[in-house]
Amino acid sequence: MKSFSIKNITSLVNGTLINSINQEITGLETVTNATTGQATFIGHKKFAKSFETTKASVVIVTEGIELVNNPTCAQIKVANADLAMAKLLEAFSPEAPSFTTNISPTAVIDNTATIGKNVKIGAGCYVGKNTSIEDNVTLYPNSTVFDDCKIGAHTTIWSGVVIRERTIVGQHCIFHNNVSIGADGFGYRPSDDGRGLVKIPHIGNVVIGNHVEIGANSCVDRAKFSSTIIGDGCKIDNLVQIAHNCILGRSCIMAGSSGLAGSVTLGDGVIIGGSASIKDHTTIHSGAVVGAGSGVVGDVAAGKTVLGYPATDAKQMMKQWVALRKLGRG
Amino acid sequence: MKSFSIKNITSLVNGTLINSINQEITGLETVTNATTGQATFIGHKKFAKSFETTKASVVIVTEGIELVNNPTCAQIKVANADLAMAKLLEAFSPEAPSFTTNISPTAVIDNTATIGKNVKIGAGCYVGKNTSIEDNVTLYPNSTVFDDCKIGAHTTIWSGVVIRERTIVGQHCIFHNNVSIGADGFGYRPSDDGRGLVKIPHIGNVVIGNHVEIGANSCVDRAKFSSTIIGDGCKIDNLVQIAHNCILGRSCIMAGSSGLAGSVTLGDGVIIGGSASIKDHTTIHSGAVVGAGSGVVGDVAAGKTVLGYPATDAKQMMKQWVALRKLGRG
Amino acid sequence: MKSFSIKNITSLVNGTLINSINQEITGLETVTNATTGQATFIGHKKFAKSFETTKASVVIVTEGIELVNNPTCAQIKVANADLAMAKLLEAFSPEAPSFTTNISPTAVIDNTATIGKNVKIGAGCYVGKNTSIEDNVTLYPNSTVFDDCKIGAHTTIWSGVVIRERTIVGQHCIFHNNVSIGADGFGYRPSDDGRGLVKIPHIGNVVIGNHVEIGANSCVDRAKFSSTIIGDGCKIDNLVQIAHNCILGRSCIMAGSSGLAGSVTLGDGVIIGGSASIKDHTTIHSGAVVGAGSGVVGDVAAGKTVLGYPATDAKQMMKQWVALRKLGRG
Repeated sequence: MKSFSIKNITSLVNGTLINSINQEITGLETVTNATTGQATFIGHKKFAKSFETTKASVVIVTEGIELVNNPTCAQIKVANADLAMAKLLEAFSPEAPSFTTNISPTAVIDNTATIGKNVKIGAGCYVGKNTSIEDNVTLYPNSTVFDDCKIGAHTTIWSGVVIRERTIVGQHCIFHNNVSIGADGFGYRPSDDGRGLVKIPHIGNVVIGNHVEIGANSCVDRAKFSSTIIGDGCKIDNLVQIAHNCILGRSCIMAGSSGLAGSVTLGDGVIIGGSASIKDHTTIHSGAVVGAGSGVVGDVAAGKTVLGYPATDAKQMMKQWVALRKLGRG
Repeated sequence: MKSFSIKNITSLVNGTLINSINQEITGLETVTNATTGQATFIGHKKFAKSFETTKASVVIVTEGIELVNNPTCAQIKVANADLAMAKLLEAFSPEAPSFTTNISPTAVIDNTATIGKNVKIGAGCYVGKNTSIEDNVTLYPNSTVFDDCKIGAHTTIWSGVVIRERTIVGQHCIFHNNVSIGADGFGYRPSDDGRGLVKIPHIGNVVIGNHVEIGANSCVDRAKFSSTIIGDGCKIDNLVQIAHNCILGRSCIMAGSSGLAGSVTLGDGVIIGGSASIKDHTTIHSGAVVGAGSGVVGDVAAGKTVLGYPATDAKQMMKQWVALRKLGRG
Repeated sequence: MKSFSIKNITSLVNGTLINSINQEITGLETVTNATTGQATFIGHKKFAKSFETTKASVVIVTEGIELVNNPTCAQIKVANADLAMAKLLEAFSPEAPSFTTNISPTAVIDNTATIGKNVKIGAGCYVGKNTSIEDNVTLYPNSTVFDDCKIGAHTTIWSGVVIRERTIVGQHCIFHNNVSIGADGFGYRPSDDGRGLVKIPHIGNVVIGNHVEIGANSCVDRAKFSSTIIGDGCKIDNLVQIAHNCILGRSCIMAGSSGLAGSVTLGDGVIIGGSASIKDHTTIHSGAVVGAGSGVVGDVAAGKTVLGYPATDAKQMMKQWVALRKLGRG
């Protein structure tokens, strides 16, 4: 387990130490649950009262929040306790699960695949024909990468992930458990006799940029033709659906259980709230925000915040909700 | 296949047998689909008419529902046909899939893992370093348990499940296919140059109580620090999202496709309807009910039922819906 | 890579060739991204302007849309460019990932399983006791089929799929990555001491017809007793939930992230929009359409289109939305 002195922590968070105590710090906890040897955080004055009874050995507190003296707990003043917490989480972050051997003897790797330096491939993994796994990639046990893929350097693929053929993944990506990349898009045509549906082949692929993170059990379908594209720095939460031919710009955020229907375009820095869904062929321009639970049925202008279903300007939607509540009261 | 006499069945459901017939019972079916040798159930008088033509050999019927005489079908009167059905399902429940050998030779189990008595580990499973698998646990083929985990006695883990490092699972739990436990929570901070997002490490874990069931393809993320906690007896359906640092009390129910954003707290016995979603940092107090499809954006008091988006008191929301319908006609 | 002459393409789409050029065609792209050697499509006159600058070598255009002359790009007139595109996608469709050996030596197949002709079973697959895999079935690496199942001829099962015991799958089906079929339905009864919940065993199974496609990470639970049934030709998108005892007729469509609660019945040709959810024990009759994002709480008549939450007649719901917008403006 990692441990740091209170002085070290002060310097890690670039803070000012007040009434120090002599105690090595071995972990982080909430102000109410912390015990001796742990650091905690107060970023809002509503938590200041909890400080009086905390058993933490050091508190990182946002400047301007006054805390009573607590003789068993040092204080470190910082500009922003939340950012300081992020820095400490990085310092305390444990090592990722390690491998006994870099390439498990139970992994099945096609002869035609190219494996870079320092690549780790866990038990039960499958790597298909002509696939290139670049340097420092980790495939955790029981993940599957099909033919003709390229996985960029320093990318981490967790167990249960399946990456279908022709997918291109950038560098420093993280795909969490049971992610599905590159399955056929959802498209059919009426059969010639008009009595059923015929599958439309999806011959395109998925192209994912650098520093993209995709949450557990999320899906990105491949394009009908051309590519479904996820731009650099996009962060996708769990159970998210991204359909065929969607194009996401840089640094978009999609929260849990949200979804994009086919051929949706997101600009740069678009934020999609949890459980929101976007109609096919819609464009959400750069910097726009879609509130949680919304259903977007038309294009959204750059920088705009929309809410509700059908999603409209957030302030207007809140007025509708107020009016509706009044109406319900009769 | 299991079979029971009608007398046995009468005693299993603690009922009163009327006009018995001589027929061994080998299964359960609906009143319209049942054939000779099958039992069926009538728990509501609207199904009484179907009894006249049923081919079932015995019907378990709630007291007070009058059925005509059917010479080929015995009747068993019970206080509650639905509860009687649950008892019979237990009696007819087939054995779980069995293993040819308890520990498959194709499973990869780290030398430092501890494996209890009567543990079964299927083909292609992976068990990581220092993980403890207690007595009578079953890991079905192709499931993955990472390092430093503890899986409590009598827990069943189905294929495709991935359990990330440091997860603690109680006894008598069931995790269905492709569940993802303990992936990183979804949290980022702006990069120092303001041009992108930096991942916040999630150094906490997931702690799951006893008798918890988690449905197929559902996700529980680990905490930023401290633990994401699922209390004893919680029942989670398929495709449910439980984000980092959520805390669920005892015996909560979450129906299919519902989701909790980060740091949501549920009291004891909370019921979350299908496809409902809950905003981050919200508390839903004990005994509260969130209707299907709702979006909860603020705390919910104990015992209260809320509905709609934004979720409000269910009766008030239904009045809003009535008023809105009137308005639409106007 | 497959390639076709422009004459071949003309005949494949049953079109009329105008101002041909001499160029072999090796792929399909959008009108703005296409380069020399690629075909593109114009099915709406709003894209006609993009044709002036396209680098495509041939355009398939719906009759009635007039395009300027472009000396580097042949034109093929067709009745419907979208249908023509589907035909060309079939022609250009690459081969599915192939196997070095038909049955991987790392697959674990129970001795009692029956394996048909030309079956392919990838690395790390598991096939349980008494299961029958019919001719020309493909199980891609790391998929799992439990005991007493039957997988019909020509069905394709992608990696990470888990099929639980007693499931019956028809012919020519496709199950995408990480699909979960046949897990226990979600049902509990109060414990005898009233202090918790007791699991109701689900002893039924799942029965899936022919030509059914199920998208990545979707779930179909098995029945309490009797069967959960998916009719011939149903097409299910990603992250869809189908609970225990649902019955789907022929050729139903369920778009991404939609869900059916327990014992929902769909007639034939029902369309469920993305993220829509349907209350338990509801019947949606043949040909009905449920709009995206809707919450259906009561039966829907044949051929009707419903929308919103609670879902009602689509036209009426749109009037409600208009009235509400007016109200919000005050």
